[in-house]
Amino acid sequence: MPIYRCTVPQASVTSEQKAEIAREITRIHCELTSGTPAGFVHVIFEEVQSGNRFSGGEPSSKALIVGRIRAGRSGEVKAKLLLGISEAWKRVTGQPERDILVAVQDVPARDVVEGGWVLPEPGQEDAWLSEHGLTR
Amino acid sequence: MPIYRCTVPQASVTSEQKAEIAREITRIHCELTSGTPAGFVHVIFEEVQSGNRFSGGEPSSKALIVGRIRAGRSGEVKAKLLLGISEAWKRVTGQPERDILVAVQDVPARDVVEGGWVLPEPGQEDAWLSEHGLTR
Amino acid sequence: MPIYRCTVPQASVTSEQKAEIAREITRIHCELTSGTPAGFVHVIFEEVQSGNRFSGGEPSSKALIVGRIRAGRSGEVKAKLLLGISEAWKRVTGQPERDILVAVQDVPARDVVEGGWVLPEPGQEDAWLSEHGLTR
Repeated sequence: MPIYRCTVPQASVTSEQKAEIAREITRIHCELTSGTPAGFVHVIFEEVQSGNRFSGGEPSSKALIVGRIRAGRSGEVKAKLLLGISEAWKRVTGQPERDILVAVQDVPARDVVEGGWVLPEPGQEDAWLSEHGLTR
Repeated sequence: MPIYRCTVPQASVTSEQKAEIAREITRIHCELTSGTPAGFVHVIFEEVQSGNRFSGGEPSSKALIVGRIRAGRSGEVKAKLLLGISEAWKRVTGQPERDILVAVQDVPARDVVEGGWVLPEPGQEDAWLSEHGLTR
Repeated sequence: MPIYRCTVPQASVTSEQKAEIAREITRIHCELTSGTPAGFVHVIFEEVQSGNRFSGGEPSSKALIVGRIRAGRSGEVKAKLLLGISEAWKRVTGQPERDILVAVQDVPARDVVEGGWVLPEPGQEDAWLSEHGLTR
């Protein structure tokens, strides 16, 4: 966790832009969550052909970014995360903000197994990383 | 928000049916939620090849429609939404109801940024639309 | 419900492995939830091309398995489900656990229509199955 899924029109984002967006989402997430190890941040791009995407019942070219994140982040952190990713997307792709949606869904730590272990509750990260021989 | 993802067998739904389903989901969602602007309703079709979809451990041709909607809708509204979309899908595609799953997941308004702004809480829509120069 | 989505690198899992994983996820889910009819367990594989998947901002070959399940399962059941699926994935694919993430998201029964009917609340399954002429 987290997993960010970026649903975009086919061929609307270049390989370079995808790599940069992935780095930016990772950087923003790690900075705002005080030390999530970068390797835990997953970013998936899903390219959708014309005819398979609609907004308001009409063909759509919007970017939909939905992150599943570990529950327990404050409203302030989440707002910064959402706005930071929206701005980064705009900056990297040149797409206007009116065509960008960013959302997050909370997933309780106990409902995630990564690397063979149930994730730690907020505040238990240091002990968990140490126990499993990981570093930030 | 909302985002409805329709996961279907490859080539099982025609282009005309997709467009009609997108319009129907948009119409149903907007009618039941008292004025969500249509442009905020996003519908994505995901076509899955044979060999990549299973039900009960066997190859599956079911339609799975999962919507992420803004939290705060009443149980009554959500039931009408689910049943209305299931019926619309059946009507447009001819697929029997036993092969249709429709679900919604609540996402709090504060966990979504669309068009550069955090979405309004239920009851705050008019002020929000007006503040951002939008109309229903 | 449930719907398990397995997001994997393109061509990293064979057809035989996919079928076996689907059977294993179905078996594990049904055993741990005391009798979910197997036909209600849906497994989707999503194959993602190189260049569309990142972890820590770098190209990734991790397997991300996210299940949407009916809310109401105990923490103990969910832990067994997560660890059981992670182990089954490792066993079938040979992929090390460090490259496997398994998560579940709760969806309230009343937020799902399957086969034309709203799903039963936990504890109401027998009456619901009987009412709709279904068997376990």
